Amino acid sequence: MVDFKQADQYVNDNLDASLDELAALCAVPSVAAQGMGIDEAVDVVQAMLAKRGFTTEVMQTGGAPVVYAERKGRNTAKTLLFYNHYDVQPAEPLELWDSPPFEATRRDGKMYARGVSDDKGHFASRLFALDSLLAQDPELPCNIKFVVEGEEEIGSLHMPAFVEKHAAKLAADACIWEFGYVDANDKPIQYMGMRGLCYVEFTVDLLKTDVHSGLGGSIFPNAAWRLVWALNSLKGPDGRIRIPGHYDKVVPPTELDRQLATALPYEGDDYKQRYGVKEFLRGTQGNPNLALQEFLEPTMTICGLTAGYQGPGAKTVLPAKASAKVDFRLVPNQTPEDVMKGLRAFLDAEGFSDVEVKELGSEPPGRTDPNDPFLNMVVETAAEVYGAPMTRVPMSGGSGPNHAFLHYLKLPVVTAGLGYPGGLVHAPNENIREDLYVKATQHIARVVTKFAEA
Amino acid sequence: MVDFKQADQYVNDNLDASLDELAALCAVPSVAAQGMGIDEAVDVVQAMLAKRGFTTEVMQTGGAPVVYAERKGRNTAKTLLFYNHYDVQPAEPLELWDSPPFEATRRDGKMYARGVSDDKGHFASRLFALDSLLAQDPELPCNIKFVVEGEEEIGSLHMPAFVEKHAAKLAADACIWEFGYVDANDKPIQYMGMRGLCYVEFTVDLLKTDVHSGLGGSIFPNAAWRLVWALNSLKGPDGRIRIPGHYDKVVPPTELDRQLATALPYEGDDYKQRYGVKEFLRGTQGNPNLALQEFLEPTMTICGLTAGYQGPGAKTVLPAKASAKVDFRLVPNQTPEDVMKGLRAFLDAEGFSDVEVKELGSEPPGRTDPNDPFLNMVVETAAEVYGAPMTRVPMSGGSGPNHAFLHYLKLPVVTAGLGYPGGLVHAPNENIREDLYVKATQHIARVVTKFAEA
Repeated sequence: MVDFKQADQYVNDNLDASLDELAALCAVPSVAAQGMGIDEAVDVVQAMLAKRGFTTEVMQTGGAPVVYAERKGRNTAKTLLFYNHYDVQPAEPLELWDSPPFEATRRDGKMYARGVSDDKGHFASRLFALDSLLAQDPELPCNIKFVVEGEEEIGSLHMPAFVEKHAAKLAADACIWEFGYVDANDKPIQYMGMRGLCYVEFTVDLLKTDVHSGLGGSIFPNAAWRLVWALNSLKGPDGRIRIPGHYDKVVPPTELDRQLATALPYEGDDYKQRYGVKEFLRGTQGNPNLALQEFLEPTMTICGLTAGYQGPGAKTVLPAKASAKVDFRLVPNQTPEDVMKGLRAFLDAEGFSDVEVKELGSEPPGRTDPNDPFLNMVVETAAEVYGAPMTRVPMSGGSGPNHAFLHYLKLPVVTAGLGYPGGLVHAPNENIREDLYVKATQHIARVVTKFAEA
Repeated sequence: MVDFKQADQYVNDNLDASLDELAALCAVPSVAAQGMGIDEAVDVVQAMLAKRGFTTEVMQTGGAPVVYAERKGRNTAKTLLFYNHYDVQPAEPLELWDSPPFEATRRDGKMYARGVSDDKGHFASRLFALDSLLAQDPELPCNIKFVVEGEEEIGSLHMPAFVEKHAAKLAADACIWEFGYVDANDKPIQYMGMRGLCYVEFTVDLLKTDVHSGLGGSIFPNAAWRLVWALNSLKGPDGRIRIPGHYDKVVPPTELDRQLATALPYEGDDYKQRYGVKEFLRGTQGNPNLALQEFLEPTMTICGLTAGYQGPGAKTVLPAKASAKVDFRLVPNQTPEDVMKGLRAFLDAEGFSDVEVKELGSEPPGRTDPNDPFLNMVVETAAEVYGAPMTRVPMSGGSGPNHAFLHYLKLPVVTAGLGYPGGLVHAPNENIREDLYVKATQHIARVVTKFAEA
């Protein structure tokens, strides 16, 4: 029998060492979008796993490789799979960071770095949890497998095919997903699914060169204007995506979704305070409405706009080229294929055949059965650490390749981890709270143990 | 009597020395928009004028200073004023330059540098023309004054007040403007006026920080979307500017304008070939229609768009902030004041009070009387150098503070210079043709001489 008091103490006593290990991983600028630091991150991740007695393997995917690892445990009949990723979002805009993004910095009970939460902190915390068990028993409670990929932040391009191809090797009984969060009241959250994603780049390229705006303004086509008009045609101020059929396959919220959304703590006031939001879209207030809108609605988000002169002051230029990065979030049962097809047809029909559309990354949506026993165990076990069981949320607002694990491995995918609403994930000053790092580690130690016993 | 054959020979013989002097001026990165290199450029310009026996003075404007210079001539009853500027456009995007923008490079009969045409080349050429006369006669033919300003590329913010304040000091009988061009057939052009300008920056700033697009996409306002919708509300794909009253004061083309536009050589094919334009806006073809559209229509040009992530690949972020730089060109009798007032009222009325508008630079439009004798002399004298008199163009597509000189100094403002359609002014690889540098210099030498004699 595992002594959780002793395991918890181990986590408290060895926090500095674990955060040092995390800091070393964060020092690798493994930005998938910029193709940086991949090989180095693979080496560091592999070494971290090998240090815990895992057999590791660098597996090719067609893109950034997966670090795969496995170690047998006492109960050889039960296998738990951890999915994590070693790649991170770009650190830009660099000038908004209070400390260098790739030098993890501890201050005021937090640690700051790009990837310190998403997802290097989660990976390090999983290993720390295993350390706390191995300190009592040289064997792990059950078989453990790790899939640590390097393209999550650019849409896990190769993960579905990878999981399908290696389904036998990856076979497991349950999967702990890459992340987990607490809400604004530090209550842990169980996300029972993830929205899909279709991330595209629009490019308009009309002239050989930028032109003096005094020459071309009234007679030359302007790429920036074409882009603005094309975007506006796709979604107007009412927020409705105008691609024909875009909402046709959307499964409306179920009665359970409404119950869960009603039971959710209201994050609206926290969002307003934290992000400076004055009013939510459509003026929505309170749950279940805000939660249903946040988690179960398709979105079309402009993530970036680029055209012409962007420096200080005035430059009288007519830009040859303009581009936009746009993120569509999908809910069951939308598919990225439908979006891409509908997008091209719509733009052509609206007279925007000069707007090129490139798919940069896609994922279908995916959900785990809300009644799954493993999911329920993870939810209930949280109470021992956080003082309350996890709150069940119908879907995560984010996306990931969970659908591939659900579909090809036929296992429940659940979330648990150290994230919190102030973590500034994907933004400058990404950070973790050290107290939540400890709690997430202690929770995972219990999950592994109870899963092995079940 | 000036021997023009001898003066022309002087120009041919001393070309390298003049281009070296121009290169030294181009080496100063005097980018007004970025506040760089101003003091250094003032020193170099002042030294260039002092070298020709001018009394120089650095005059404060409230912004970048004006280098003022004057020198008496044989005919003390006649004064010619040159207006030039020592500031240049930003060199970005740097990666598109074939040689460093601030290292003037000669190749294939051209010289490349930021500002080599606009406007340092014109300034150097004016001085070179005086050199060719001073080589024959230690006195200049008439009084010459120079106003060399440092904020032309950011809208000559302080020039109108400067000219008004110093009208007595600047008093002259005629003004040679900063630029001049030949057309695609190397025939020189006389621009009889300049469009006005109202350059604004739109900024939308809605959140304290960028947010993960998986979190905020369906509930948070998106600055980039707000910007797109605001811009689209101002001008749709039909190209019509929707600010109420924007066209009310526009003077329709006169019969003379139509005649001049009809007589203009058709630049359309050259534009298509040079800039890769497939079709002109509204499908316009041929003159007078294309010329009238180019020179006498108000425009609203997006010069730049900025929001969120603009690097390679995908970043799933909802941007806190978005901005656009927009250039309105004005024709007689529009005013920048009307544009700014109308813009704010329109945005508020359309529900875009969250879009901030900042005026970065403005100039009213201005035209010289097409029957002015000085203008006619400059037009006819060109024939001695170019083999044909200048073609009269109703207006320049560009803008400048000519209105202040017209209004406060009550003198004709005419154009003459070395520009050509391939000069890539305001764009990467800005350049001059050395043969046109020679011709423009020889033309100016004749203009100064004949003006003094008249």
